[in-house]
Amino acid sequence: MQWQSDINAASQKIKAFVRKTPVIAGCDLGIGIPIDLKLEHLQHTGSFKPRGAFFSLLTESSNDRSVVAASGGNHGAAVAFAAQALGHNATIFVPEIAGAAKLKLIRQQGAECHLVPGAYADALQQAEAFEEKHSALSIHAYDAETTVIGQGTLAAEWDQQGLDADTILIAVGGGGLLAGALAWWGQKRRIVAVEPVQCSSLNSALKANNPIDVAVSGIAANALGAKRIGQICFELVKDNDTHSVLVTDDAIASAQELLWQQLRQYVEPAGATALAALTSGAYQPSINERVAVLICGGNPNRDLFASD
Amino acid sequence: MQWQSDINAASQKIKAFVRKTPVIAGCDLGIGIPIDLKLEHLQHTGSFKPRGAFFSLLTESSNDRSVVAASGGNHGAAVAFAAQALGHNATIFVPEIAGAAKLKLIRQQGAECHLVPGAYADALQQAEAFEEKHSALSIHAYDAETTVIGQGTLAAEWDQQGLDADTILIAVGGGGLLAGALAWWGQKRRIVAVEPVQCSSLNSALKANNPIDVAVSGIAANALGAKRIGQICFELVKDNDTHSVLVTDDAIASAQELLWQQLRQYVEPAGATALAALTSGAYQPSINERVAVLICGGNPNRDLFASD
Repeated sequence: MQWQSDINAASQKIKAFVRKTPVIAGCDLGIGIPIDLKLEHLQHTGSFKPRGAFFSLLTESSNDRSVVAASGGNHGAAVAFAAQALGHNATIFVPEIAGAAKLKLIRQQGAECHLVPGAYADALQQAEAFEEKHSALSIHAYDAETTVIGQGTLAAEWDQQGLDADTILIAVGGGGLLAGALAWWGQKRRIVAVEPVQCSSLNSALKANNPIDVAVSGIAANALGAKRIGQICFELVKDNDTHSVLVTDDAIASAQELLWQQLRQYVEPAGATALAALTSGAYQPSINERVAVLICGGNPNRDLFASD
Repeated sequence: MQWQSDINAASQKIKAFVRKTPVIAGCDLGIGIPIDLKLEHLQHTGSFKPRGAFFSLLTESSNDRSVVAASGGNHGAAVAFAAQALGHNATIFVPEIAGAAKLKLIRQQGAECHLVPGAYADALQQAEAFEEKHSALSIHAYDAETTVIGQGTLAAEWDQQGLDADTILIAVGGGGLLAGALAWWGQKRRIVAVEPVQCSSLNSALKANNPIDVAVSGIAANALGAKRIGQICFELVKDNDTHSVLVTDDAIASAQELLWQQLRQYVEPAGATALAALTSGAYQPSINERVAVLICGGNPNRDLFASD
């Protein structure tokens, strides 16, 4: 119950800063069953991440503190956006894997942006050093209570918009979004956690019965490529016996194309990962099961309006 | 009153075939004022056109009749989609200006598709010849009552979704969508008709006090490039004293980019034309005027998923 009341309070706190993103009920995407969709990639900066970033900043910041984050892209853009809106300086450490489009996106939000050779873990290390040196406020991308509670406002909002589904498919990277959903819904709805085969931090942790380090690669790695699932998420998954499925990069790419062909939504691979579980058959709903899919990120690694 | 009851009846008739497209209330696009948006480009085939196509087919067709249309793209795709859904053969005559992406889109809906050298008028001529020869049912892209009534269901739907705006900006080509909006709203809301400078069939007709032929060109011509405004639309515009404004291609391109940067919606130029009136200052709302923008088309002339 504590989670829910925390999420309700967070919804009020961040209300003026985030978009209430649109939903489509019973959408026909030509895949045989109607599905409910939430288009959270229409959130500021193109992903759900501002929810956690705003709630963390509004909860923990003092006026003169600068803010730091390590991020493969979406979290960094969200922290930068939230920091700018609330009048903080933000410094973001970005691993090479982020790609040019996400780097540009972060810089557009007015943040100081450092590209770090190597993987996310290397960027995180530099962010931690910066945090210590400058007494900066660090916002974790997924494994912090305020982040989880902030992301949970998405689930609360969807319920409030009349969601009428038995099952909700959600993509998982470090697990902040999944944790938020489980914190809000518990076992009231069936949550299916969807990961790329090549970024399977949760699935691997469930097999090992403990969070473990995994190698990450593939088309969704800059958004879903957490090396290790967050502890908060892992515990919620265990408590709620959450179903975990894997999808291939090919299935993700097909779902990405389907979203464009059928709905004119051009999302990044991570944004199509939850849908891929349905279209590939990795998750097979039973007859009359009402299924919902959360589209969480819309920042493809491509500059659609580049002048060259 | 007749229009409204016709539109209400049409809404019921086409309900099972079209999407209820999402809306966003008070959306902050970083342009200084919140605006209400209707994302009608998420309709089947990427534009509002299936509304008129389904209503026309359901009203006028007999089972064994084949269907024909001339179209710069969006209407053709919609007629093909509706014909396929209702079990008719469709033949679409497409002017060269349509572009490869729209041609592909029409073919994907199972229609027989003929590319006609020249402009829309040339394609229309061939469609008329086909209609006569095969006793086919022709569906006009904008200047037929069933088309106008069908497009009017969009306005009715938006009201039903809680639209709370004084003013609605709508892009105009041949005027089917605008006519539908005026048929529904009359003078209950202020409607602003927005055209590209290079496709100004309505604006030119208002100056001449009669529909006249205009030359069409520019980035939105394959969707908004009607040579002459529809008679039904022109009369509704006169009756309701509708405000007409023009925007440059540059303003349209900027609005198109803004929709991507701020909302991750990648729409065609026609889909960004109404917004361009706000961002360019062609329409300047007064203080506290609540403004809504209709995003009507999402089929850019570009194949995002081409394998080459």
